Amino acid sequence: MKLYSYWRSTTSYRVRVALNLKGLSYETRPVNLVAGEQSAPDYTALNPGRGVPTLDLGDGTLLTQSLAIIEYLDAIAPEPRLLPEDPLQRARVQAAAQTIAMDIHPVNNLKVMVYLKAHMGLTTKGQLAWFRHWMTEGFAAYQALLPEGATFSFGDTPDLADICLVAQLYNAHRWGVDMSPFSRLLEIEERALSLTAFNDARPENQPDAA
Amino acid sequence: MKLYSYWRSTTSYRVRVALNLKGLSYETRPVNLVAGEQSAPDYTALNPGRGVPTLDLGDGTLLTQSLAIIEYLDAIAPEPRLLPEDPLQRARVQAAAQTIAMDIHPVNNLKVMVYLKAHMGLTTKGQLAWFRHWMTEGFAAYQALLPEGATFSFGDTPDLADICLVAQLYNAHRWGVDMSPFSRLLEIEERALSLTAFNDARPENQPDAA
Repeated sequence: MKLYSYWRSTTSYRVRVALNLKGLSYETRPVNLVAGEQSAPDYTALNPGRGVPTLDLGDGTLLTQSLAIIEYLDAIAPEPRLLPEDPLQRARVQAAAQTIAMDIHPVNNLKVMVYLKAHMGLTTKGQLAWFRHWMTEGFAAYQALLPEGATFSFGDTPDLADICLVAQLYNAHRWGVDMSPFSRLLEIEERALSLTAFNDARPENQPDAA
Repeated sequence: MKLYSYWRSTTSYRVRVALNLKGLSYETRPVNLVAGEQSAPDYTALNPGRGVPTLDLGDGTLLTQSLAIIEYLDAIAPEPRLLPEDPLQRARVQAAAQTIAMDIHPVNNLKVMVYLKAHMGLTTKGQLAWFRHWMTEGFAAYQALLPEGATFSFGDTPDLADICLVAQLYNAHRWGVDMSPFSRLLEIEERALSLTAFNDARPENQPDAA
């Protein structure tokens, strides 16, 4: 498989973790978002949404959108499971994952920052406040969705929600979010990053890390 | 079942369509987002993300996040299917749905507009430009993901992608998006809205419509 991705993209980070947990090998094809490579015609032919990641299954079959990709991987390589089979438990894990993937990530995306700077005079200080606001709100909601007694978010092995969480926490640290209300989330992060599958997927461990 | 929802919320609209397509009856519990009812303690106890919809399965079991809810409904009431069983086809429908649910909807959400007005002086004109920008980009990506020859987005019956599309098109019309590049999407919308399940779910047909 070939993973078109960017080292600092949290959606790319999610798919890297999933591939690693499943033991599926892949080649990284870097797409430099800061240089605008996601808008080059060669790439938009692969991903009309001009985003990362894009997964080439190896035969030219292309998948986009990190959560759709991870659910596909969970179907074709079910061990270890990243989503529960039970519909109710599955819905709970997905709701937590989507709290990060829909309520935090899209509004903090690079393309949104570019728009706010170009059209609304967003300052560096304003950007920090923006990032911190949406992450603080989203992490509070995420933490409130978690059951008692699990060592990861929902169980004793990492799932889709943990993957989304750990990738987002990279941004939280990068942008100086006050994590003092979220000790449960930091414990999950520490446990996850002690696993090779997560550690190898960290932004700084990618071939295109600058 | 009880659906906590707001008439104009496109995420509520999605779940209404899914419930109607499945023939599952529900009571509407209006949550007035403009009046801030999503932040009332009684409601945040149900939905810590302070959003709609929330689905009470009838026994007090609560589900949040529209896509997680719809996937749950598709598991417990599989006819008609809203997501294909085949993993690859499923990933394609989900990627299209997520193009709307992640790349368009979150950045145009009411809470984002409130923040931009309060902190960045967003004007009415700026808001319109913002809405139109993200919808135009997202619809272009969505349309490019569709196969040839289907009468709905991916097949001859509506699926999760169609549900997300039709709900988002309500906002597109409301905010005057130029839909001339998207005739395929308008054809899908017309076909969908001719079905009772979609028509009954339209914002203007809800008990809390103002």
